[in-house]
Amino acid sequence: MKTTMGIIGIMGSGEDATEQDMQMACALGSELARRNYIVLCGGRNSGVMKSVIQGVANEGGISVGILPGINKDDAAPGLTIPVVTGMGNARNIINILSSDVVIAIGNTAGTLSEIALTVKNGKYLIVLNQSKESEAFLRSLKYPKLVFAYTANEVMNQLNEWLQSY
Amino acid sequence: MKTTMGIIGIMGSGEDATEQDMQMACALGSELARRNYIVLCGGRNSGVMKSVIQGVANEGGISVGILPGINKDDAAPGLTIPVVTGMGNARNIINILSSDVVIAIGNTAGTLSEIALTVKNGKYLIVLNQSKESEAFLRSLKYPKLVFAYTANEVMNQLNEWLQSY
Amino acid sequence: MKTTMGIIGIMGSGEDATEQDMQMACALGSELARRNYIVLCGGRNSGVMKSVIQGVANEGGISVGILPGINKDDAAPGLTIPVVTGMGNARNIINILSSDVVIAIGNTAGTLSEIALTVKNGKYLIVLNQSKESEAFLRSLKYPKLVFAYTANEVMNQLNEWLQSY
Amino acid sequence: MKTTMGIIGIMGSGEDATEQDMQMACALGSELARRNYIVLCGGRNSGVMKSVIQGVANEGGISVGILPGINKDDAAPGLTIPVVTGMGNARNIINILSSDVVIAIGNTAGTLSEIALTVKNGKYLIVLNQSKESEAFLRSLKYPKLVFAYTANEVMNQLNEWLQSY
Repeated sequence: MKTTMGIIGIMGSGEDATEQDMQMACALGSELARRNYIVLCGGRNSGVMKSVIQGVANEGGISVGILPGINKDDAAPGLTIPVVTGMGNARNIINILSSDVVIAIGNTAGTLSEIALTVKNGKYLIVLNQSKESEAFLRSLKYPKLVFAYTANEVMNQLNEWLQSY
Repeated sequence: MKTTMGIIGIMGSGEDATEQDMQMACALGSELARRNYIVLCGGRNSGVMKSVIQGVANEGGISVGILPGINKDDAAPGLTIPVVTGMGNARNIINILSSDVVIAIGNTAGTLSEIALTVKNGKYLIVLNQSKESEAFLRSLKYPKLVFAYTANEVMNQLNEWLQSY
Repeated sequence: MKTTMGIIGIMGSGEDATEQDMQMACALGSELARRNYIVLCGGRNSGVMKSVIQGVANEGGISVGILPGINKDDAAPGLTIPVVTGMGNARNIINILSSDVVIAIGNTAGTLSEIALTVKNGKYLIVLNQSKESEAFLRSLKYPKLVFAYTANEVMNQLNEWLQSY
Repeated sequence: MKTTMGIIGIMGSGEDATEQDMQMACALGSELARRNYIVLCGGRNSGVMKSVIQGVANEGGISVGILPGINKDDAAPGLTIPVVTGMGNARNIINILSSDVVIAIGNTAGTLSEIALTVKNGKYLIVLNQSKESEAFLRSLKYPKLVFAYTANEVMNQLNEWLQSY
């Protein structure tokens, strides 16, 4: 296989994702796949996870899904590498630890736990689609590896900057 | 042993806890033990965890510590029941799922991940010692089982209200 | 509460437990509770787990149940301290790491995984109710902290010997 | 990427692996990669894990390593997809649940726990390099999806048989 440039995690909601979240997830999945990143997410056939995997599959890329259940039945179509944990939400930490950079879309409770674990583990973090209150709160943390983005282009530029110096 | 009224989880930071966080943790541990609650926390010999366990021990109560390491070496003195997970921060979900009510002190990243998991799992939640920005953010979630408290008395009154109807 | 002498884990099957396994589990639970040990097991309302918890409850002791599910609904009646992991069989490692001594009853696959983890983590281990083939196999491992027992009395004597020098 | 035929897990010891175990692991990794299987293992730079990953890399295949630590520092060279769990031996269940077929080499304690979890979860299992006692014991379980193999060829033939009907 082609040499990969790193594993980029995209975190976001399942059932509570908005249409805007899912469009962003799909666009980012495709962009990352085109540049030979491996894309990691929660793997389920719902919301941001489903959209990321679709975006990666559209470009023939590699997606890794860290699934919460005890089998692959809840995996999104097109997922390349299903990792079956059987651990429910305890798997969130695996999503974060396995990613060189974490991209978080939206601010539902599950995604917020992943944002918090990213900060706690000192990883690079790009967040999108936050509410006014969550953006104000995240800024108040003064976490030096946190960047807010508003378009897929801004995400890709930030990734390039970080991963060139990585 | 005496019949217990439920398991109350107290979450808060280790190394980053403030003096004010630790005093609140100790006071709450003692209050809960006096009323025969089992008190659950992260178990380590640091910050809020250490203070909770001290508070419970002062009243001869039962504390359960969900430890991240592979042995009991990092447990706080006086911890009654060390549960050794070997799972690092993946243990955070156990703290939440095992608690009938979660009390979160402060808003460092680790505590924030536990607040988020509490909301995601639909558990009762009392938060203390938040920054202005984190309180505004948490209020914006409109989570119906979330209450802000500012004194140990307010915490105990809210617990009584919830657990009588439980 | 009274000072405890240590945490003793009793491992054994749920649905596949034999009547003989369950009687042994109940007898050991009672013996351990009478001597103020905390007794830890998998916590479910089935087989060896249910019987251990019944035995402990009969003597007013403290039982800790490391539950696989996401809530307490599958806990055995009388369980004192339910620890809810939401992690399925990944919880087996918690059973072992949290026990000062592991007692394994029977040799179904789940129990065998806990026997193996006990050996891998260098813990004291007492096994009962093995088949001829499993006993021969376990002996072939030449693990120095492994003892075979055939009665509850033998278990208690071995525990006393180990925990006095502990 | 090319369509893959399934994920095959190869389990075996790290520091305690024999030279014979490692040669078998490397040969199997290469054979599986040539046939476009994704090969999953524990990922560490030691023993069977290291050899599997070397064998896969020699053929340009895809290896997935489920790492126990909190970062990639202990990954074997050539590992394609490091999954970082931070969960120590609790990760063993992920190895099993993520594999369509499990191949276990040797019978040290860690590998034995994975053999036991494979049986408990009803997965296809091929074992190699067992002692006389462990083979007798495993046969006594009468597990219908367990096959003993003694050469890499026998493993590949059995895989083909299972995965054609899968």
